[in-house]
Order: sequence, then C-alpha cells, then structure tokens
Amino acid sequence: MRAAVMRGDRFVVETRPDPIPGAGEVLVRVKACGICGSDLHYFHHAPDIIAMAGKLGAPTDELQRALDAGPVLGHEFVCEIVDFGPQTQRALKAGDRVCSVPFVLKGGVPVLIGSNPETTGAYAEYMTLTEALLVRVSDDTPTEAAALTEPVGIAVHAVNKAAMAAGDVAVVVGCGPIGLAVIAVLKARGVGVIIASDLSPKRRELAGAMGATHVVDARAERVMEVAARVAPLARAVVFENTGAHGMLNQLVLEAPRAARIVVIGIPPGEESLLPMVAITKELELAFVIYYTPEEFAEALALIEAGRIDWRPLITGAVGLDGVNEAFRDLQDPERHAKILIDPSLG
Amino acid sequence: MRAAVMRGDRFVVETRPDPIPGAGEVLVRVKACGICGSDLHYFHHAPDIIAMAGKLGAPTDELQRALDAGPVLGHEFVCEIVDFGPQTQRALKAGDRVCSVPFVLKGGVPVLIGSNPETTGAYAEYMTLTEALLVRVSDDTPTEAAALTEPVGIAVHAVNKAAMAAGDVAVVVGCGPIGLAVIAVLKARGVGVIIASDLSPKRRELAGAMGATHVVDARAERVMEVAARVAPLARAVVFENTGAHGMLNQLVLEAPRAARIVVIGIPPGEESLLPMVAITKELELAFVIYYTPEEFAEALALIEAGRIDWRPLITGAVGLDGVNEAFRDLQDPERHAKILIDPSLG
Repeated sequence: MRAAVMRGDRFVVETRPDPIPGAGEVLVRVKACGICGSDLHYFHHAPDIIAMAGKLGAPTDELQRALDAGPVLGHEFVCEIVDFGPQTQRALKAGDRVCSVPFVLKGGVPVLIGSNPETTGAYAEYMTLTEALLVRVSDDTPTEAAALTEPVGIAVHAVNKAAMAAGDVAVVVGCGPIGLAVIAVLKARGVGVIIASDLSPKRRELAGAMGATHVVDARAERVMEVAARVAPLARAVVFENTGAHGMLNQLVLEAPRAARIVVIGIPPGEESLLPMVAITKELELAFVIYYTPEEFAEALALIEAGRIDWRPLITGAVGLDGVNEAFRDLQDPERHAKILIDPSLG
Repeated sequence: MRAAVMRGDRFVVETRPDPIPGAGEVLVRVKACGICGSDLHYFHHAPDIIAMAGKLGAPTDELQRALDAGPVLGHEFVCEIVDFGPQTQRALKAGDRVCSVPFVLKGGVPVLIGSNPETTGAYAEYMTLTEALLVRVSDDTPTEAAALTEPVGIAVHAVNKAAMAAGDVAVVVGCGPIGLAVIAVLKARGVGVIIASDLSPKRRELAGAMGATHVVDARAERVMEVAARVAPLARAVVFENTGAHGMLNQLVLEAPRAARIVVIGIPPGEESLLPMVAITKELELAFVIYYTPEEFAEALALIEAGRIDWRPLITGAVGLDGVNEAFRDLQDPERHAKILIDPSLG
C-alpha cells in the first residue's frame, strides 16, 4: 500500500506492506483523514517532545523508535471495512464506513495509533483497527462530515468538563479547528452567549459561521472585557485552545471572578502564573484531553443529526502526494482550517 | 483603649481613642483573637505585598496609608457586645458574645477589617462591628473554641469547593492551623481516608489528633505515593495549604490522574507549572479564598455541636503585651499552632 511517511522535515510517499489484521482486528481502507494540530506539532517538534517526555521520567525508547522508523500519522479518520481478522464478531460488514477512537487494543491495552511502528496511522491507504472500538457511520452522512468526529469528540469532552450551568457565558480563546468545534458543540448544547476571539480574520469569520454569537479581534479588544460588557453578571467559562506561551497567565490576570478555565491547548513547556491572583478571584483551571468512547460516539451522533455545521470547517482535500503542501498551507490561518487527506486522490 | 499597633518590625502597645459605633454598628470588647498566618505574612512582607498589589494594577494608596498609620491587625475574634450605635436592631443584648466575618459594611460596601485605619482589627481592647453581620456564640461554647470560627470557616469553604464525591481520598498538604482545620472539617463531614503531610513532627502529631487517618513525614515519603498505596482506585482531592514556592508544580507532577487540587495557601509571587503534565492527567486546580456568611455560620455551628476537636489547635494565649513574643514563637512549628490574644491578660 501507499503511505505518507514522516522522514525528518518532509513526508515521503512510500510503498509499505499491506497491514494484516490480527485477532479481534479488521482491515480497513482509509476514506478520509483530517490533519490535526497535534500532527503539525509532532512534525515540527518531535525531538523536543521526546526530550520533554524523557525529562518527565517517561521511557523514550518507544517514541524514538517510532520516529526513527518513519511514523505514519493520522488519527482523525473515516474508513471502509475491507476484511476481518480472526476472532471477530462481524456484526458490521465489508463496505461499511466506520470511525474509531484512535487506539487499538493490544492484549487488552489501548495503544495510541501512530505511537509505534505497529500501530500505523491513517496517512495511508490501509490500516488495522480493533473491531470492538468501531462506530458505524450512517449511510446518509458524508465521509467529510464523519472525518470530524475526532475533533468534535475533543470538543464534546471539553464542554462536558466545563460543567456549565444555565446562564454561564462561554468564552472561546483561539479558533483553530478545536476552538471551532467547541463553538459548534456549545451551540448544539444551546449555550446562549458564545464569545470567540482569534488573531485571524478568516478564523473569526469561521467562528461566526460555526455559531459564535460575538466575535472578537484579539489584537483590538480583550475578550474578557467583551464578555463583561455582553454578560456582566454571568459566570464565565473559558475554553483555552491556543496553547500559546503566556496565555494561561494572561487568562488568570484577565478572567472575571469565579471563572472556570478549561485548558485544551497544550503549551510545550513551563508556564508561569500568579496563584495570588487566581486565589483572589477563586478561579478554577480544568485541564482536559481526549474523550470517553461515549463522548466520541456522541460527537458522531451530533454530526449525523445535523447539529454540527461542519461545512465551514473543511477547507481543503489532498491525496497522499499532497501532504507536504497541506502541512505548509496549514501554517497560514487565513487559508485553511481543516484539510482532509483522501488517499484515493493520489 | 489599648491596642497592639504594628510599627515596622515590632508591635507597640499604644493608647488609642475608644472607637465609636456608627449607624448600624455595635461597640464590642475583644475576648479573644487568633493570630492568623496571614497576619504573620503581612507583618514580615507588608512592603512586598503592597508592591505586588501595585504591579497588578490595584490602587496602593489605601494600603500604604494603613501601613503608615500603624495597622491594628486581628480578624479571628470573639467579642462581647458593649453598646449599640444609632439605627441598630438590638436583637442581641450587651454581654452577648459574638463572632463576625472580618468585614464591616461602610455604606453597604464590605471593607476588610484591618485594611485601613477606620476598620481597626482585634489586637485591641475594643472594636466596632456591623450589627447585621454578627453571629451569636451560644452560652456553653468556650470563647477559645469560638475564636476558631474564622479558620474553620476557611476550611468549610475549601471542603465545599473541593466538591468531593463518596470514596474520594483527601490529601492534606501542610498542617498549619488551616491544614489542621481542613482535617477537622473533613472528619466532621465523614470523609473516610484523610492523608496529611507536614515537615514538622509536632504538626503531624496535631494532624493525627484532629482526625487524619494517615500521617506522612514529607521529608521521608511522598504523600501521593502513600495515597496511591492506601487508596489505589480512589480519586484524590488535594488540599494545598503551604503556599510554598514550587509546591504547585510538585503537586502537578506527583498527583494521580483526575486529581482535584484545592489551592488555599498563597505563594507570594509567580509559580511555574507544566500544563502538558496537568493536561495528560486531566488535573483540576481550584483556587479558593474566604467563605460565604453561611459557611462562616456553619463553622461556628460545627464547633458548638462538638464536631470539631478544637483543643489540640490552641497552643497558647497572650495579652496585648505578648504579641511580639507570640509572633516570634509562631515561627517555630514545633512549639505552636494557634496562639490567641486575650487583651484582658495584659
């Protein structure tokens, strides 16, 4: 099969052996795979990420081995079932489209797809998935829409962890694909006031299209001041999606009393903050990652029910040959939000 | 009246005019006042605190004026009603013992007691309080016990903010008076596993006396490892009471997955942490301060009902003449936890 393999500072389309499904696994053909911000981050900073993991006491051998072997990334996928391995239930059938949380079970242990050479990601024609983790995509749901299940799952989880009460105002800081998905889920949940900020005009336009009720140019205005003006008595629940250095402290300084800050964006290193300020205002910081299998399934259900306006999010599609170009284009927020890889395009 | 006035690096007992209760206020005689850790902090670091407030954009004139005028500290008080100002309800009577949240209402605005020369604290023979904020102490409650209402109120609020679920394990980091009060409230609420750590043998002994089920020498063992051993499947709710530099990051590094860290201790400056670690473990940080009036009243009710074992907490009593000595003694955790000032002692 063909696969876009990460080799240093570029992707090379290589021919790799077709994967063979093991016990409890299915062989699937990749129909579409979104390029995630974390893929970009890994592409640009893999050695730093491995060094940081080592600094924190994690065993880095596996991570280094995956990097040396040429990783095949891709965890936001929609696939089509091709074949079944041994010891499978086969409740679904060949040709069914499926999503899955980006893990395969190896001896019952979840292993992140793309984290080692044995768990190839979806920047490829084929991959193997754990049958028990598959979620079927309904026939009338476009493949592109279902490819957003994973980022929408992140947003469903973040909104659940936000534990918003009626009347709380949502503040979305950073409108990349995750921030936009958070806006969409907030809208689907019926949150009345959604204030979004970003530096990029294109991203602000998308924020409005996804359901933000107020859109703020982060260069011209402070989003917390807008929130205080729009909803002066409401508790603010802040979704931080940028992962930008210094943003955490900025939010602590600017957030109103009793705000809950849900931290989704991942700054790569140390961040400083003033606990005295956080204490005086009784802030809460909730750090979140991933989703439960139920939240992942809820994300697909929201998409299938037409509750997520997914079309503005998808701004491009490439084949495996186009991955290098897509990674370059995604550096420019004015041009793109989410680019899908469709291996059938070349 | 006599008052222990903070003058630079010592307290001087001065004669000040007896305060005169204004509209809605009562004149009270101080029966006992606990020396709070924040009093010690202000005594040792007042210029730094004012500088930091200025750095954060707060107007510092009032703070500087209070410092220059010679502050009379003291906000953990039990008093006896002496006289009533104009426009008072007089539902209580002269001789009744009362507590109050450490605020007086000036034109309806709460002003922190001791924060300016007009709101003198309880290191004095007399003070004025807002009648509407008084809570009566029942006749059979010892004055020393009621003097703990304020720190126990802090603990009630922190435990409420912790939002513990059945089966959660409590980890109390730092067993000064607030940590000890947290232990007492956790015990009163029926929390089954309370693991407390401190550097000081005396404080660890007090932690056991107040209700900790497991006591950890912070120099010899990691409290999180003890928690993992004692209650491996429980969610950990951590109460950070030390305010020590570096403690926040240490707790982020050592806390188990999904832990909630309630931050009560106030580090004076910037603290750094690794959001990547907090995100991977989905930690929550809840920064808390003070209490509601209801929580303050609940604290006194717990004490009156005998649900707080207050005796081990109180390790000394001095008159106004003894404040300098008490402040010196409190530097040594082996000697003291809470010292009460009783102006009738001299």
